[in-house]
Amino acid sequence: MQLGMVGLGRMGGNIVRRLLQAGHHCVAFDRDAAAREALAAEGAQAVADLPAMVAALEAPRAIWIMLPAGAATEEAIQTIAALLSPGDVLIDGGNSFWKDAVRRGAALRAKGLHFLDIGTSGGVWGLKRGYSLMIGGEEAVVRRLDPIFAALVPGKPAAPPTPGFAGDPRAEQGYVHAGPNGAGHFVKMVHNGIEYGMMQAFAEGLDILKHADSPELPEEHRLTLNLGDITETWRRGSVVASWLLDLTAQALAQDPELEDFSGHVSDSGEGRWTVQAAVETAVSAPVLSAALYARFASRDSRRFSGKVLSAQRKGFGGHLEPKKK
Amino acid sequence: MQLGMVGLGRMGGNIVRRLLQAGHHCVAFDRDAAAREALAAEGAQAVADLPAMVAALEAPRAIWIMLPAGAATEEAIQTIAALLSPGDVLIDGGNSFWKDAVRRGAALRAKGLHFLDIGTSGGVWGLKRGYSLMIGGEEAVVRRLDPIFAALVPGKPAAPPTPGFAGDPRAEQGYVHAGPNGAGHFVKMVHNGIEYGMMQAFAEGLDILKHADSPELPEEHRLTLNLGDITETWRRGSVVASWLLDLTAQALAQDPELEDFSGHVSDSGEGRWTVQAAVETAVSAPVLSAALYARFASRDSRRFSGKVLSAQRKGFGGHLEPKKK
Amino acid sequence: MQLGMVGLGRMGGNIVRRLLQAGHHCVAFDRDAAAREALAAEGAQAVADLPAMVAALEAPRAIWIMLPAGAATEEAIQTIAALLSPGDVLIDGGNSFWKDAVRRGAALRAKGLHFLDIGTSGGVWGLKRGYSLMIGGEEAVVRRLDPIFAALVPGKPAAPPTPGFAGDPRAEQGYVHAGPNGAGHFVKMVHNGIEYGMMQAFAEGLDILKHADSPELPEEHRLTLNLGDITETWRRGSVVASWLLDLTAQALAQDPELEDFSGHVSDSGEGRWTVQAAVETAVSAPVLSAALYARFASRDSRRFSGKVLSAQRKGFGGHLEPKKK
Amino acid sequence: MQLGMVGLGRMGGNIVRRLLQAGHHCVAFDRDAAAREALAAEGAQAVADLPAMVAALEAPRAIWIMLPAGAATEEAIQTIAALLSPGDVLIDGGNSFWKDAVRRGAALRAKGLHFLDIGTSGGVWGLKRGYSLMIGGEEAVVRRLDPIFAALVPGKPAAPPTPGFAGDPRAEQGYVHAGPNGAGHFVKMVHNGIEYGMMQAFAEGLDILKHADSPELPEEHRLTLNLGDITETWRRGSVVASWLLDLTAQALAQDPELEDFSGHVSDSGEGRWTVQAAVETAVSAPVLSAALYARFASRDSRRFSGKVLSAQRKGFGGHLEPKKK
Repeated sequence: MQLGMVGLGRMGGNIVRRLLQAGHHCVAFDRDAAAREALAAEGAQAVADLPAMVAALEAPRAIWIMLPAGAATEEAIQTIAALLSPGDVLIDGGNSFWKDAVRRGAALRAKGLHFLDIGTSGGVWGLKRGYSLMIGGEEAVVRRLDPIFAALVPGKPAAPPTPGFAGDPRAEQGYVHAGPNGAGHFVKMVHNGIEYGMMQAFAEGLDILKHADSPELPEEHRLTLNLGDITETWRRGSVVASWLLDLTAQALAQDPELEDFSGHVSDSGEGRWTVQAAVETAVSAPVLSAALYARFASRDSRRFSGKVLSAQRKGFGGHLEPKKK
Repeated sequence: MQLGMVGLGRMGGNIVRRLLQAGHHCVAFDRDAAAREALAAEGAQAVADLPAMVAALEAPRAIWIMLPAGAATEEAIQTIAALLSPGDVLIDGGNSFWKDAVRRGAALRAKGLHFLDIGTSGGVWGLKRGYSLMIGGEEAVVRRLDPIFAALVPGKPAAPPTPGFAGDPRAEQGYVHAGPNGAGHFVKMVHNGIEYGMMQAFAEGLDILKHADSPELPEEHRLTLNLGDITETWRRGSVVASWLLDLTAQALAQDPELEDFSGHVSDSGEGRWTVQAAVETAVSAPVLSAALYARFASRDSRRFSGKVLSAQRKGFGGHLEPKKK
Repeated sequence: MQLGMVGLGRMGGNIVRRLLQAGHHCVAFDRDAAAREALAAEGAQAVADLPAMVAALEAPRAIWIMLPAGAATEEAIQTIAALLSPGDVLIDGGNSFWKDAVRRGAALRAKGLHFLDIGTSGGVWGLKRGYSLMIGGEEAVVRRLDPIFAALVPGKPAAPPTPGFAGDPRAEQGYVHAGPNGAGHFVKMVHNGIEYGMMQAFAEGLDILKHADSPELPEEHRLTLNLGDITETWRRGSVVASWLLDLTAQALAQDPELEDFSGHVSDSGEGRWTVQAAVETAVSAPVLSAALYARFASRDSRRFSGKVLSAQRKGFGGHLEPKKK
Repeated sequence: MQLGMVGLGRMGGNIVRRLLQAGHHCVAFDRDAAAREALAAEGAQAVADLPAMVAALEAPRAIWIMLPAGAATEEAIQTIAALLSPGDVLIDGGNSFWKDAVRRGAALRAKGLHFLDIGTSGGVWGLKRGYSLMIGGEEAVVRRLDPIFAALVPGKPAAPPTPGFAGDPRAEQGYVHAGPNGAGHFVKMVHNGIEYGMMQAFAEGLDILKHADSPELPEEHRLTLNLGDITETWRRGSVVASWLLDLTAQALAQDPELEDFSGHVSDSGEGRWTVQAAVETAVSAPVLSAALYARFASRDSRRFSGKVLSAQRKGFGGHLEPKKK
């Protein structure tokens, strides 16, 4: 089957590679010529601009955009939509805001075009393991592109069957048609929110293990623990067994003190949007929020709240804290 | 190898079964005669009381206690210790408080006895999957009982190898000698703390998915999502893939609305102790705490804080809230 | 000075009363005839519709809208704006979303009108104590209406002077021109966010005091505490002395068990918007968020997250929780 | 009335001063000779050691210990108890752990001595404003020392009466006999827990105000706010009016950017014990815990949890974070 891919970074490039391996025909574009030449060498049909991509695909076309959420994705959608013909499909596979997908779907529908919002999980491992796909859009369009999705997902043998599962068989392959436009990015957003929470759960637990030798404990209670051995142990038979644990054990195996990292953690939009969605629907989400705030707090420059506390402490108790640590 | 087991409930009984399957000799006791007869029928040597157990084992003996933490475990340790000879080993495999393990180890050492505190993860699945063991105590004693531990754990093939892992090979089998007495239960405690956090991350995420059709959202943003298909999808290729996700997908496959459950959630000591350990070592653990508090809040009777809020709202704003929902 | 007031509920009505007491001339309108007649009896000039209000005021007019945020306010602004002349001022004194104030200010400015967004704190006590006003808009317009604001605020003697204060003297009266349109409602929003946090701090503390007799504590540690006496004590000399404490002590004096309240707590938009603002500006706000989530969780119907936890617990540990409490 | 005071630091010294001003007779001791001479100059009877203090007081004696909680207080209690006669009273006015008060009360009672645990709030302002006292111990003993307490508290005029208050009239003066030993320090502990929550609520709110000019906001939404004027405004008529707000406004008046503070915030035991008490009694206390964790997180050295997050992000997504800020 034919697919156009716009954006050949870590995600877009590997999606093309996985499709090529499955025998699909990919027309590939990236503003960076080196990126498209690299994929041409691996079998893709590289094109030099978007009109060339549209010309290279037979109608009804399917073009997958894999660009940073926000301005880059918006601009690409606008530009490509102007080149397409009724019946063509535009796919946003990036981490876009789900309300943008609702809006874009409606706008493209008004032009006779179709839109799919696809949340794509799998990161740098997707090429080898396959991607988990969460899709929003019209069922007929999702069905039409089924060969593409079937090639991208890990497939049924990637996990043991769930006893009693009687839902959509596509879910057992690794993809879900979650609902109309917006549903794909909404589900991916919540997926990432859960991911934030799970990561922070491990981070806090390991932090407690790490500080089990704290001088704040009485001497007979202090413990010096080997985090690499502990996380490796948990990978087998424990309740916290998970892919994130595998990755954590791996990181600790290679760098037991994690000295390659400063402790400052970035966040992408998805964690923030999850908190907003919780607030908008009146769902109590303390763990997902705390996970996000831990990242904000890890970035140094936010010290004003601490200064306020110190000023208050000085005010009522005469407590002085060292100006510089 | 010989092992005595005191307490033949869900955990103790299955540990005996797994040891019997591996060809070990188990002397088994439970206050409930039916429980010990059941295991006798499966090949264990059932005894009618603790002196009989001690008599049935050759020195140096190893007796594993698998009882509820607290009074039951304390009493069993006291009673058995009085019957043992120097060089014998007493094991507490339950979810005991780690500081109790420190205390008990010292007390037993003073009598010439050895003590191991073993955190045991695996639940009802341990018989089939094997248990993850986190052990505190003296290295020589841990080594002596190695055949027992090797039979209980899942074993190396249960998970793909961690690239670069060069730690204790036992960790790759599924057990870790974490440190001196206390270390086993400390590590198990933190494991359960992480488990609470991961569970709550899933719970909040699914709650948001469930309420994506909330009337609080504008109509064009409301989504009706199929949680069973979504969780099944995530099991393959996504970042949140985990055993807890497998169990969640399974529960949703069997009961999509989870109507078998009231929403009130119990907690055991381990989640609480984890928070205490964080506080004692000045580690920020907002996610692990929030997970615990969500359980507290899920139990209906705790409404006083809400009443205080309503009383304040009435006080300053004249806001009246319905007395009964 | 002349002022038109649209919306004569608890807030709008009392604002008119306080202005009348200060000798100002108020033209008052409410859809409810009884409400406007009541105020007419107290000296306001009641009008039967909005055109009558506009006719009754001399240009440049100032009309204060005190309606529920959202549709009611939006509609009133649209309607009145169409009746006004260049140079007139429209005031939104309700709890509107601050971004709406930015938008409305720009739209009205384009028509030659002025807009002020005024956050108004004081609740049912404002008539007697005066209101705390947080104002966004053009300085010249704020200055023009100074007599109105000066009449509404508590005034300088209402609190002892702050040593070293050298800021805007209006702040010492109880009002602040916070910035351009949006600033008034932004500051009010954060004020309410802080209020949520303070309220929840008291709620949790009192909940702990209330449960100091918990059977979960060893008998020698159980305490039965008199919350009414304790909160009354804290009102003098303690660090937590505050108006919210005064109101809490009052509520407990009148109803020691707070039996008038169910424990279910409503929330208004401001608490939610504060969390959104924190997320948008990457400020870690765990307390303000936890306070909001405690309200969400206090409302019974949200049980799905708890069901997920119970289902997982059953899945890995065979734990069964009672179906009905 | 006579009182012995051991520990003449900020708190102990000012308590003596306030008692002297009320005409009481104070026997004062501190290891630091300069401290006791200073108070002698103000009218106290300074003594050079503890036996001299006991000798200087008539039976039944009352000795107030105002020392750092922990070893210093424990040692002083042991030493003085050995010098006292049956019927004498020992007071711990420091921030001791409430369970220690339970234990100490029982131990002293066994020797025929009385013990009071008194939580003392008021900080450096207590000398002028009076102290808020939360007392645990026997009623007869509390009554006997009533003149002392009455002199220390702010007194009834310090706050307007609470409508409907019909509790213990001492509460309206500013002190409460909360219950048996332990109750005084328990109530003080919770008081400080609430204080942590209120402080953090202000800190987060001001942080949001401070970052209202964040480049993360669209340009038309950015606001530059004057925190000094805003907090001054809130002091009159707003719901968040409080002593902590007064102190915050004062700090901002003197140092608008709070540049005297680094943002690193210390914590004392009381915040930690409050969280422990919540956990022990199964009370959901997310705000009080978040406030404590924010202080932990403010201290730089705790970066391991952030490193874990970064290592996971690199693991699944290839995300690289800058090693050094």
